[in-house]
Amino acid sequence: MQWTISELVERFDASLLGSANTVITHLCTLEEGKPGGIGFFSNSKYVTAFYQTNASAVFVPKDFKPATSIAAALLSVENPYECFAMLIEEVHQERMASKRGIEFPSYIGEGVTVGENIYRGAFSYIGDHVSIGKHVQIYSHVYVGDYVTIGDHTILYSGAKIAPYTVIGSRCIIHSGAVIGSAGFGFITNAAGTYKRIQAIGNVVLADEVEIGSNTTIDAATIDKTIIGKGTKIDNLVQVAHNVQIGKHTAIAAQVGISGSTKIGDYCKLGGQTGIAGHLHLGDYVTALGRAGITRSFKKGHITLSGTPAFESKKFLSCYARFKNLAQLLEKRNDREKSSK
Amino acid sequence: MQWTISELVERFDASLLGSANTVITHLCTLEEGKPGGIGFFSNSKYVTAFYQTNASAVFVPKDFKPATSIAAALLSVENPYECFAMLIEEVHQERMASKRGIEFPSYIGEGVTVGENIYRGAFSYIGDHVSIGKHVQIYSHVYVGDYVTIGDHTILYSGAKIAPYTVIGSRCIIHSGAVIGSAGFGFITNAAGTYKRIQAIGNVVLADEVEIGSNTTIDAATIDKTIIGKGTKIDNLVQVAHNVQIGKHTAIAAQVGISGSTKIGDYCKLGGQTGIAGHLHLGDYVTALGRAGITRSFKKGHITLSGTPAFESKKFLSCYARFKNLAQLLEKRNDREKSSK
Amino acid sequence: MQWTISELVERFDASLLGSANTVITHLCTLEEGKPGGIGFFSNSKYVTAFYQTNASAVFVPKDFKPATSIAAALLSVENPYECFAMLIEEVHQERMASKRGIEFPSYIGEGVTVGENIYRGAFSYIGDHVSIGKHVQIYSHVYVGDYVTIGDHTILYSGAKIAPYTVIGSRCIIHSGAVIGSAGFGFITNAAGTYKRIQAIGNVVLADEVEIGSNTTIDAATIDKTIIGKGTKIDNLVQVAHNVQIGKHTAIAAQVGISGSTKIGDYCKLGGQTGIAGHLHLGDYVTALGRAGITRSFKKGHITLSGTPAFESKKFLSCYARFKNLAQLLEKRNDREKSSK
Repeated sequence: MQWTISELVERFDASLLGSANTVITHLCTLEEGKPGGIGFFSNSKYVTAFYQTNASAVFVPKDFKPATSIAAALLSVENPYECFAMLIEEVHQERMASKRGIEFPSYIGEGVTVGENIYRGAFSYIGDHVSIGKHVQIYSHVYVGDYVTIGDHTILYSGAKIAPYTVIGSRCIIHSGAVIGSAGFGFITNAAGTYKRIQAIGNVVLADEVEIGSNTTIDAATIDKTIIGKGTKIDNLVQVAHNVQIGKHTAIAAQVGISGSTKIGDYCKLGGQTGIAGHLHLGDYVTALGRAGITRSFKKGHITLSGTPAFESKKFLSCYARFKNLAQLLEKRNDREKSSK
Repeated sequence: MQWTISELVERFDASLLGSANTVITHLCTLEEGKPGGIGFFSNSKYVTAFYQTNASAVFVPKDFKPATSIAAALLSVENPYECFAMLIEEVHQERMASKRGIEFPSYIGEGVTVGENIYRGAFSYIGDHVSIGKHVQIYSHVYVGDYVTIGDHTILYSGAKIAPYTVIGSRCIIHSGAVIGSAGFGFITNAAGTYKRIQAIGNVVLADEVEIGSNTTIDAATIDKTIIGKGTKIDNLVQVAHNVQIGKHTAIAAQVGISGSTKIGDYCKLGGQTGIAGHLHLGDYVTALGRAGITRSFKKGHITLSGTPAFESKKFLSCYARFKNLAQLLEKRNDREKSSK
Repeated sequence: MQWTISELVERFDASLLGSANTVITHLCTLEEGKPGGIGFFSNSKYVTAFYQTNASAVFVPKDFKPATSIAAALLSVENPYECFAMLIEEVHQERMASKRGIEFPSYIGEGVTVGENIYRGAFSYIGDHVSIGKHVQIYSHVYVGDYVTIGDHTILYSGAKIAPYTVIGSRCIIHSGAVIGSAGFGFITNAAGTYKRIQAIGNVVLADEVEIGSNTTIDAATIDKTIIGKGTKIDNLVQVAHNVQIGKHTAIAAQVGISGSTKIGDYCKLGGQTGIAGHLHLGDYVTALGRAGITRSFKKGHITLSGTPAFESKKFLSCYARFKNLAQLLEKRNDREKSSK
């Protein structure tokens, strides 16, 4: 894949400072830029890298004028990063394009419905009565249990495991090793203190445009549904327990754990390694900084949480600043008290 | 699968309020109940859902009398949830019943012993000299290394990885993506600060009725055994390091990490995201609330732990309450001191 | 595999106290020692186990003299554990020796280069244009995407998933279920608060002698590289986000999470469940105790960190000691103030 500068100027409606004939062969950072590469510059933190780059071209903001002359061709555009991201997408699409058709051996059960133009990698497993939409890509070692439904344009990367009865929307991405729809951690405690399993006969439902990270686990509801709402993005190694409901356009960073039956609203943001106890309710827009431990419900609103048990971040950080001085503070106070006696 | 109300009345020795002829086609929650569904009511938190349910039938406690008339048939029983759980189990068993026999391609090594009535899914891998009991289910993409032993009625879900020499008891459940018996994180540090691997030639031993969650990892002992005791249940994404020993009927929630050579007793409960340092000993009945960081041993006894480093939960929460007021408290005290001068 | 005592004496240049003719058939701990077993004794914590062992032989330090007579043959050597570890390695090598050649079915794409003496397990998948060195072992259910490079003597255990374009050095070990090179958690936030994926067209580069634990996830860079330096060892269930760079000979314990674009130096040690925010820089030799939450950069140096946000461990533990007494301290102070009025 390659582009000439003049093609890019036309495509992104850019003004050009520099030569229009250079051929661009790859995307790069400013720091690692090499001839043939194109990068972008939109954050003044990278100003040194910008003036030192060996990249052949750089997307810059519309109002930007270089302080000194620079070898790279400059393409002035409204949003440099978005233009760059469009080229990333183009490279990505080209790489993925070949993953169509069926590799062998692969396994497909009875009563399966399959849309057009799909990819089924070698050693992928499709159970009975599965319904698969159009343009779906199922990589090697994926397991799709009986009665699963998968919407159009969804991608399941190598080794994703989808338990029976799971429903997956359109344009979802399930990364490698994610496990969706295992039985949740549900037991009856016997009088003797031993445990008897409660099976899960519910399922997991992922709405459209949901993304599930590598090795993340999402458990099936006991009965009923574990639900992930439209456009919600979940990072790697996250645990979503049985009967959890997550709203739309919520972002959940790596290693977060959400306990059983908790409900999380729309547009929430959960920082990495956050834990949330069971049977709680977080309203829309609630944000947790990394490593928060949430032990009670919080209403809808633009609150940011820290600490375990979690409370408002600014207040937490103020208390924590006192905590860091605690040894000294108490010593000083003791000194003062002694000296005042 | 379906039942008539009268069948259920007879089976659970229930008293009936309502029609005996309705046909029940599925299990449901009270909130999501629809005609044909049966739910259960045993917690007064759900009283509104109970009176509003559209389910056709509800298990209720023996002494319960509805305050107003209700459309659903009521089946009065000793323990509504247990009756409901028995129906869940029945639905589950029916769903699993078809997983018998051998799907192709699948791989089996030399010198393997296999009991009757087992399931080997497509792309499952059984190494050499493996011993597999009766009624074992091995789903697709499972790896069973050489010299592994698996007891009767054990289930290995899709993509579980069992390293060579692992011993798994009867009636165990290993969920998708769990990795049992990898070499533990053991190295010799050279003088230069670099690391030399110590291989693991020990193994993992799971007693009967152990359950291991999705994507959980349990490392093999360097020599000797990593042991999980009878009836112990481990949730998803848990790390159990090499040479750990866990007793019987202990419950370990998601994302807990247990460092090398630590011993944990019987009937312990470890809340989600708890971490335990290495070479410690937790006695029977010790409980950790979520996100505890345990850095010393605790004797057998009904203690509950919180915080990092962890100590008794009530004391922790009392200190934490002071911590939350720390900024204010110290300010007030300064004010008082100033005003008293 | 077995050895006579006299063979071991010669091999390890040991002095012998006891019989030279005993045949050693296995390695053991002192506690679990049985006839035919050899153990090692180098830590006085295990003195009771040493005098009570039923093992047939024990490696002991050069200057050690038993206080009473002991049935086991004693082999005095410079470093008992290193000798023992060499026997562990020998047993391990013998166990692994049979994993050579190709099992069927397995999948291999077009334009693949393969060195001599490799193992490709059943159901392993090698994509197009992959380059594989000599003596590489690829277990069952491993996925190796297009354009991946793998150095000599590297081992990929069952179910490891290596995304396209990943570069893996020589003598690396990738444990079961590790996912290397998935697209990082990168999105553009639209005005409406929804997310648009930024694909990753960069990759992951693992230098020589890197080890990656079971079910650990390492994300590909957006463009450019996520880098793990030579000899760095990463435990199970660790998250390494996109564009992270980790230096040489750094050790990272289980369940650590490292956010995007953070740089970590050489010879660092990160305790279990530690979390590190994005875009930070930890210099060489920085150590974090378990469960630290690192929210700012730290310069090169022998500092040890605890707490969230993390600061110097000794200071943290001193403050935490005050925290644990906070309830009491404040009460006492109130009492004193009252009584002084």
